[in-house]
Amino acid sequence: MSELLNDRLLRALGREPVDRTPVWIMRQAGRYLPEYREVRAEAGSFMDLCRNAELACEVTMQPLRRFDLDAAILFSDILTVPDAMGLGLYFEPGEGPRFERPVRDAAAVRALPVPDVHESLRYVTDAVSRIRRELAGSVPLIGFSGSPWTLGTYMVEGASSKDFRHIKALAYDQPAVLHELLDKTARAVTDYLNAQVEAGAQALMIFDTWGGALAHDAYERFSLAYARQVIDGLIRQHDGRRVPVVFFTKGGGLWIERIADCGADGLGLDWTISLDEARRRTGDRVALQGNLDPSTLYASPATIRDEVRRVLNEFGAGSGHVFNLGHGVHPQIPPDHVRAMVDAVHELSPAFHE
Amino acid sequence: MSELLNDRLLRALGREPVDRTPVWIMRQAGRYLPEYREVRAEAGSFMDLCRNAELACEVTMQPLRRFDLDAAILFSDILTVPDAMGLGLYFEPGEGPRFERPVRDAAAVRALPVPDVHESLRYVTDAVSRIRRELAGSVPLIGFSGSPWTLGTYMVEGASSKDFRHIKALAYDQPAVLHELLDKTARAVTDYLNAQVEAGAQALMIFDTWGGALAHDAYERFSLAYARQVIDGLIRQHDGRRVPVVFFTKGGGLWIERIADCGADGLGLDWTISLDEARRRTGDRVALQGNLDPSTLYASPATIRDEVRRVLNEFGAGSGHVFNLGHGVHPQIPPDHVRAMVDAVHELSPAFHE
Repeated sequence: MSELLNDRLLRALGREPVDRTPVWIMRQAGRYLPEYREVRAEAGSFMDLCRNAELACEVTMQPLRRFDLDAAILFSDILTVPDAMGLGLYFEPGEGPRFERPVRDAAAVRALPVPDVHESLRYVTDAVSRIRRELAGSVPLIGFSGSPWTLGTYMVEGASSKDFRHIKALAYDQPAVLHELLDKTARAVTDYLNAQVEAGAQALMIFDTWGGALAHDAYERFSLAYARQVIDGLIRQHDGRRVPVVFFTKGGGLWIERIADCGADGLGLDWTISLDEARRRTGDRVALQGNLDPSTLYASPATIRDEVRRVLNEFGAGSGHVFNLGHGVHPQIPPDHVRAMVDAVHELSPAFHE
Repeated sequence: MSELLNDRLLRALGREPVDRTPVWIMRQAGRYLPEYREVRAEAGSFMDLCRNAELACEVTMQPLRRFDLDAAILFSDILTVPDAMGLGLYFEPGEGPRFERPVRDAAAVRALPVPDVHESLRYVTDAVSRIRRELAGSVPLIGFSGSPWTLGTYMVEGASSKDFRHIKALAYDQPAVLHELLDKTARAVTDYLNAQVEAGAQALMIFDTWGGALAHDAYERFSLAYARQVIDGLIRQHDGRRVPVVFFTKGGGLWIERIADCGADGLGLDWTISLDEARRRTGDRVALQGNLDPSTLYASPATIRDEVRRVLNEFGAGSGHVFNLGHGVHPQIPPDHVRAMVDAVHELSPAFHE
């Protein structure tokens, strides 16, 4: 493997000195880029794109050709693991993802296999290897997965949900069944992330998109506990380097003291919490990633620059900050506005690292 | 007006002693009740029901006939104020509310009238008077409005939104335009709530359903500031009694110290924060209303009872707690499960007031 030429992301996640704040963007490979939409149209379905290592590599590289980003992130879907568990992932046009066979009772949970990810998710590890080769050490590659709880919401509801009715009924009435589901999912996620590391991922991110929908105590039992189980099982040292892990619970700002103890090197944060408060409350024992409101990118480049400055100021001086949005970039955002954000991080952040 | 026979709600909001924790339910008059669905079908459209004082009174009374609740809440829509401002509220079947004429630029904001609520919202104050007569002092009547920010999201987006794209672009790029919109809306909301008090509302609730979508600093400027403006302008003493105000920002748990200073007597809370933490962080200077996860009501009555106990325990001993869900009751909930919750509050809460 080539030597890593830009290790800002890894250094910032290790809270080691950097010359400027590293920046990458959740969903940086995505629909806001016209070149992505072209490849997507060519690929057929969204899952066809994810399953084609060559095209997945191509769309992963696209944002790096436009913007001076400090990391690539594997292009894939968060629901590959439940799909590999046999739930039958499909997409209805104009709707979110769906599963043909949602898992709603003890028998269905018991029957659920923990997949051999090296076999069933080979298309992902193939994409990882290919992207690593293509990156040729320019920036590190981030692998990722959904958290067990977040994957569980789709597995039980069978689709995106507003009220999480079925999984919450399970959580309250048959917690043992849900724990079995989450344990199996956590084991699959652990294997999946480790397979990504073995294939070349140099950092990992776990997306807990729906953890914030839980009551405070239920979050601890059904989301955080299984994130911890996954993190405990991850390969943390590979190819002579630490493989840092970022855990992101959207809407989890209230709970960051507890989240900071989950074993992750960094916490992803949405825009509802000030980085100043987050840094104080986590006692600088984890790195922080975020947290510009993605809607800021609808504003003018001048405003975007002001908001980037605000976020950098809120974190303040020193290492331990990875600049990012607080959630994925919206499909309607003009790429030039993304550029304004990246450029502002480049220009304004060195002052915080002198 | 008849003497008030059950003043638990008013006493709890004033943090005065009560014999048990008062309980009411957000959206207690609503689709989960078969008798509501009958009246709704008879009324025609949803707005026809809101505009018919007799039927609005009837559906307001329905949950009180089934359950031993400590308050009635006016049945109405949160978007009556922007409708009275001329935006043309309508409902598409299966979709949320929409406005025919969203307000998206300086000229449209300037042209926006502050309505004479006594005229254009007479149908609401008529319903309030009628409900007061019908209640005959059995329990207090809560009047309500959306917060200026929350009304503003619908006024600018023209509909429910996931990303609040248009109003956030205004907030970031043309803050003066948005401030003018929010100021006008705040004045209309103040007049509207005061008209409800004059017509007989004995407590008020301001719903800031979408405040939690804002970045922490933007929340302060665009939501909390205008809630404060409204609260500052409210009639707080009427008919020889204090008219308490509850302010509820869904997803606002991170910010409750600041929210507790908005002038409200009570804060509504969703289920993401423990009442124990909320009580500690607000220093017992406001009452707290909430905060059972509405999805708990999908579970069995025995589980519901356990969860009610947990919420009561989290608040702990003493007055200052109004039991409620952390958001509106879902339409699919069996009424018997609502009864299990109300009964559990009745049975378990006296121990906290000895």
